[in-house]
Order: sequence, then structure tokens, then C-alpha cells
Amino acid sequence: MASHPLLVAPPEVLLKPISVPHRLLLGPGPSNLAPRVLAAGGLQMIGHMHKEMYQIMDEIKQGIQYVFQTKNRLTLAISGSGHSALEAALFNLLEPGDSFLVGVNGIWGQRAAEIGERVGARTHPMTKDPGGHYTLQEVEEGLAQHKPVVLFLTHGESSSGVLQPLEGYGELCHRYQCLLLVDCVASLGGAPIHMDQQGIDVLYSGSQKVLNAPPGTALISFSDKARDKIYSRKTKPYSFYLDIKLLANFWSCDDDKPRTYHHTTPVIGLFSLRESLALIAEEGLENSWRRHREVTAYLQERLQELGLQLFVKDPVLRLPTVTTVAVPAGYNWRDIVNYLIDHFSIEITGGLGPSVGKVLRIGLLGYNATRENVDRVAEALKEALQRCPRSQL
Amino acid sequence: MASHPLLVAPPEVLLKPISVPHRLLLGPGPSNLAPRVLAAGGLQMIGHMHKEMYQIMDEIKQGIQYVFQTKNRLTLAISGSGHSALEAALFNLLEPGDSFLVGVNGIWGQRAAEIGERVGARTHPMTKDPGGHYTLQEVEEGLAQHKPVVLFLTHGESSSGVLQPLEGYGELCHRYQCLLLVDCVASLGGAPIHMDQQGIDVLYSGSQKVLNAPPGTALISFSDKARDKIYSRKTKPYSFYLDIKLLANFWSCDDDKPRTYHHTTPVIGLFSLRESLALIAEEGLENSWRRHREVTAYLQERLQELGLQLFVKDPVLRLPTVTTVAVPAGYNWRDIVNYLIDHFSIEITGGLGPSVGKVLRIGLLGYNATRENVDRVAEALKEALQRCPRSQL
Ligand SMILES: Cc1ncc(COP(=O)(O)O)c(C=O)c1O
Ligand SMILES: Cc1ncc(COP(=O)(O)O)c(C=O)c1O
Repeated sequence: MASHPLLVAPPEVLLKPISVPHRLLLGPGPSNLAPRVLAAGGLQMIGHMHKEMYQIMDEIKQGIQYVFQTKNRLTLAISGSGHSALEAALFNLLEPGDSFLVGVNGIWGQRAAEIGERVGARTHPMTKDPGGHYTLQEVEEGLAQHKPVVLFLTHGESSSGVLQPLEGYGELCHRYQCLLLVDCVASLGGAPIHMDQQGIDVLYSGSQKVLNAPPGTALISFSDKARDKIYSRKTKPYSFYLDIKLLANFWSCDDDKPRTYHHTTPVIGLFSLRESLALIAEEGLENSWRRHREVTAYLQERLQELGLQLFVKDPVLRLPTVTTVAVPAGYNWRDIVNYLIDHFSIEITGGLGPSVGKVLRIGLLGYNATRENVDRVAEALKEALQRCPRSQL
Repeated sequence: MASHPLLVAPPEVLLKPISVPHRLLLGPGPSNLAPRVLAAGGLQMIGHMHKEMYQIMDEIKQGIQYVFQTKNRLTLAISGSGHSALEAALFNLLEPGDSFLVGVNGIWGQRAAEIGERVGARTHPMTKDPGGHYTLQEVEEGLAQHKPVVLFLTHGESSSGVLQPLEGYGELCHRYQCLLLVDCVASLGGAPIHMDQQGIDVLYSGSQKVLNAPPGTALISFSDKARDKIYSRKTKPYSFYLDIKLLANFWSCDDDKPRTYHHTTPVIGLFSLRESLALIAEEGLENSWRRHREVTAYLQERLQELGLQLFVKDPVLRLPTVTTVAVPAGYNWRDIVNYLIDHFSIEITGGLGPSVGKVLRIGLLGYNATRENVDRVAEALKEALQRCPRSQL
């Protein structure tokens, strides 16, 4: 074997220790890890196909069924971030030429539409300014006009702070032979969602928001209707990694068949996810919903006392996890965000996608949703508003 | 807002503590986490777009350039397992109708061919029995016949234990206007690879083998030729999550443009990956290669002393990380694997894909590649061979 001299030397930066600051993460996620989740991140590896791992996967499945409020057997965790769950949904549900209706009232709908286009669906965006939501009537018009096989809605629109109502949408979709796909990445555990009772066909979420687990795993579940659509596809999905039939086998959602190796799952990430689901099972979903509602209401009060304007006018449409305020007149949003990081080690963020420049976003997610944290961020904001440059109006 | 009663109660299993046994992982991966990597898993979260995270990502990029021995700017980590890196490569390199030549001498080539088919490439497998490898002449015949745009080869064929030679293959491919894509998931850090000097156009690896980091991140790099092919595509890749142009921006491989949010990267997984790359930078690649070669040679000696037959006959073609032995006559491979787990808490595995039933696989990966571990597994195997049922021959 010919041998080569080394062309690239060991990088100097890697010979120094890793540097990770402590931050209070009050943006729209990732949130701080709960102590028990943190502990799980320090556990030693086991094999992805060891029986103890299968046990943990079964526990995760049950945990997802609980937080989603579903009895769907086809329920599992995806080995990737929230976007990979969205791709898993669309790659498996849509075939080229299928009609796909998308509520685009912020970045997440944009992303869904983008992926719909990529897989060759006839993609119909229903575009609204950030802050908008979809009424039953608007959805019905879209369904009647485009006869989609899938409708995408975002439950917790974290770029605008809107909570999309979901009561009646599933039923409506089913009257039009359409499947309802819902993103609850930013709302799960913070705002009520009842997958089965609300007739949601595909629901997905992320690990790094209310669940306080590290990013890198995502939750997903499919109704029988969605399952049937997938199992009667004429073409294989483009992705092997996200092929739900194969994942269903590995997650043992198909009782009969023995599990076969598909890919190496993120073992440690799954430990953390398991612990985060255990925490919410212990607290109780309804308690978690109430806590988010109350603490976020307190935040909104404190923000208004500071003279800030909530971006979402109708209280019923305000997300109880991520709060948006209009960027206060005369300020550059970046100055405020930087002030909080630099002086308080607190993260809040600006807008995202269509809401950039319009809003500041403050998240109270899971373990971080406490009155103490509201007080900390409100005090920090108060100081920022005094100290940051303000142009003459 | 209508409210529903809870349909699903908190799962009992989640109210019990998580249970994770201690195991010595001497299968083909995941391997045990090195202590420093384990410590990184217990660090607290920061934002995926914080400047400290960008610094860590830059360190990872440099670490990948080092372990791959490449100066490619388009070098980054994928937020998924080894398979997601393979998909990232194929989704971005191939367009429908492109000719794709695949060395299928085990499961990894099967997987590459499967993904090639899914994305609509004209996929040409060069199929061999497990244990086979590809000579320059065989590759040249394939190139001449199929005029592929991409050739896939597996450097460390972990399902058969074969080390594919790579000297001259890049040059050969380039003479035929073909890009060379190589899987080094199971060999990186254990067997010499020189991406630039060997003319490899796309190289990818996983985190959970010699690097001793948790599964969930993967390493990938693209030569300028590969980059040009990607940047001159006529169609967008099907996947947004794995779109290399977008990832290149987020990983700042495109100097000029500011980073924009793409997806939430696996922050904690990246901490671990950074630490694993730091460990190999400290040890030095050549030392790591030598250690794997020596310790695996010692393992092979011990195995032969037990009367076991190495599956790969030619010593030059033996992978210095994952060793395959023929299942000893009269034994059921499952009995041996189970004996080691049950009595010694040591994982070794059977075959995978086409090598199932043919081999036992023993991995000495990174931190686990020590003479002590060889002694432990050899002693355990000795006992298993005495105690496991053996049919009359
Ligand atoms: C509502 C919503 N959907 C989807 C995502 C995307 O998730 P990820 O960044 O994990 O890919 C996010 C992340 O912030 C989100 O808030
Ligand atoms: C050579 C090789 N390629 C690819 C893979 C796939 O990686 P993953 O299981 O992380 O998706 C493996 C995993 O064992 C491997 O050994």
C-alpha cells in the first residue's frame, strides 16, 4: 500500500479545551436542558439494537402517544431535527403530482411548501402576513379549490407567535378526502393538542422546545388514514433514511415482523428524549399546559408594563410558549438581543423568515417556564430599553 | 377553545427510572464513548446560532479536514447518522437519469444502490460476494461500460471485514469524468485515508466508530469537482434538510455570505464530535492508525490461537478496525454472541446483510482498541466456544 505524508496538520484550535458558556435560553428554542435530561446525556453508550434500547424506544413511543394524545401504533422518533420530521411526513405522504395545500403564515409553512415543491407535489400556498392564522372557512375554500391530498398547518407558529386553532379542521379535511398534517414543534407540551380527538393525521414535534431535550430527535405519529396512504404508494419515497415503512419496522410499530437494522439511531439523544418524556408524564400534560399558560400570561403582563406591544392582538391566538412583541419604535432589534446576551447571558431572539425586523421573540419552554425567569428577562429588557440607542422618532 | 378530556394516561413505564447497562462494545459500532466525549454529553445547551457554537462548528470543520486529510472548504457535519451522510452525498450529486456505478460487496453498497434507485439514477451495481473487493481493472471496466457520473466504494466494509484499496481509484475515475464517492464510516481513524492525495471527491464517515462519539452526527467533505457538479445541478435536491448548498452556508463553507438559519443542529452531539476530533488530533492520525493496526493484528493472532478462521484471507485486505471470523463449524452464531453479552457484558455481533450467518464481527474502535480489550474478548470467546452447544459435524 502506497503511503502518503500527512498533508494537513492537527488543528491548533482542537488542542485547546472546548468552551461553552452558561446561558439562560429564553428564545424560541433550543431551551435549557432539564437536570434529569442533562444527566441522561452523560450516560454511557449501548448498542442501538440491544434489548434495553428497544425497551427505551418502546417507552419513547408510549411517551409520544401520551404527549400527542393518540393511540396510533405508527408513532416513533425520527433521527434528526424538526425539519427531518417534516421531510419524513412529506416524503412519505406525497407522490409526484399530488396536490398539497399549505398554510404559509410564517417560515414553517414556507419550509413545508419548499419541500412539497422539491418532491414534485403540486403545491398551493395560502399565504398570509406573519401574525395571521387560518379560519375553517378559509381552509374549506382551499380544500374545495385545490382538492389536496394533504393540508399543512402550524399549530405553534414560533416565528410570529400565533397559536393556530385546530378544533374542527381534521373533520373538515376528511370531508374533502384530505389528510391533516400539523407541526407542533413549538407548542407541544405548552398548548393543548389532542391528535386523535382533533382528527390530525400526521403530527410531529421536536425535542428541543418544551421537552428540554437536546436537538437531534423528533417525534412523529401517523393515523390509520395516513398509514394507508403511505402503504398504498405507487413509488418508494426518495429517502431511505426517512422511509416510514422501514422505520415502522425498526420501531416495532408493525407487531408481526422482527426488527431489522435500518440505521444507527442517536442512542444518547434517545436516552435524553426518554427522560424528557418521563418528566412531562410525571408533571401531567394538563399541568404543563396550565403552567405555560399562566407563566406566559405573566410574561405578557410584564412586557406590557414595560410599554411593549404584543405582536398578536387576539389573546386567544397567542402561543403560550413563544411570545412575540413588536420591535419597539426607534430601536434596532439586534441591539436589544445583544444587550441581553452580553449583560445578562440571556438569549431572546429577533424574528425569523417573514417576521425578521418585525418582532422580538421570548420563549418560556418547559423547565424554563417559571415566574423567576419572567422576572429575570423583564428586568433585563427594562435595562436594555434604557441603555440601547434609540433613534429620534 | 373546546377542550377535550385526556384520552391517553401517562405511561407507567415512564414513571420508572431509565435503565442502561454497562457494556463493553466490541461490535462494529457504536463503540464506547471516550471519557472526554462522555463529559461533553453532559454540558448544558447553548443556541445553535450562538457565536460560541459557530466557533465549535469551525473547530469541527478543521477536525474533519484533518482526519480526512483534505483542504476542501466544503467540509461539514451532517445532522444524522452515517446513512444520512450517504443520502446527502447521493441526493446532491445525482440527478434523475444520471448513471451511477456502485461497488456492492456487502450491505453498504446495497444501501447506496437502493438510494441511487430511489432518486432516479440509472444505477449499476457491481455485485460481489461478501469478502470481495474491487481491483482497478474491474472498476475501469465498469467505468468504460456505464460511463457513470459517480462511483461508490466502501473503504471499510464492516459487514465483511474488507479494506478496499484506494490508491489510484480517484485518478482512474477522473480519467473517465466520474466522481469518486467513498464510505469510510468504519475505517476513519483506523486505516489510512488521504482524501486529497487519493483523489476522492466525496468522503463521509460516522461519529460512533473510531471517533467514539454518540451516533447522530456524520462527517462529509466535497472536492471542488464534486462541488461544481452540485452547484451546476439543473434540479434542486429532493431534500431541504440535506441540501448541501444550504448546509454550506450554515457551516460557513461559503466565505462571503452570512449564515442563515437552516435547521437546529444537534448542539450536544456536536460538542461530543468536537471532543472526539480533539482526541484524535492530540493522539495524531498516524499514531491512531498504527494503534489500530497493531491491536487488531494482536486480536487476529488470539482468534487464530482459538482455532477460529479469519474471514478475509489476504492480510492486506483486512480492515484494521472490524475483524470478521467465519462462524465456527457446528455453532449457531447467535449462541456465541448471546453468551458474551450474558456472561461478560461484551458485545460482538453476527454478520449484516449478505454476511449474516457467515461471520462473527469484532470491532476495536478508537478508545476501545487496546490489548486489554483483546484479552477480554479472547478469554470470553474461549469460554463461549467451550460452553455453547455444538452440533455433531
Ligand atoms: C414551529 C416550528 N416548526 C419547525 C421547526 C424546525 O425544527 P428544527 O429547527 O429542529 O429543524 C421549528 C424550530 O424552531 C419550529 O419552531
Ligand atoms: C461502513 C459503514 N457504512 C455506513 C454505515 C451506516 O451508518 P449509520 O448506521 O450510522 O447510518 C455503517 C454503520 O455501521 C458502516 O459500518
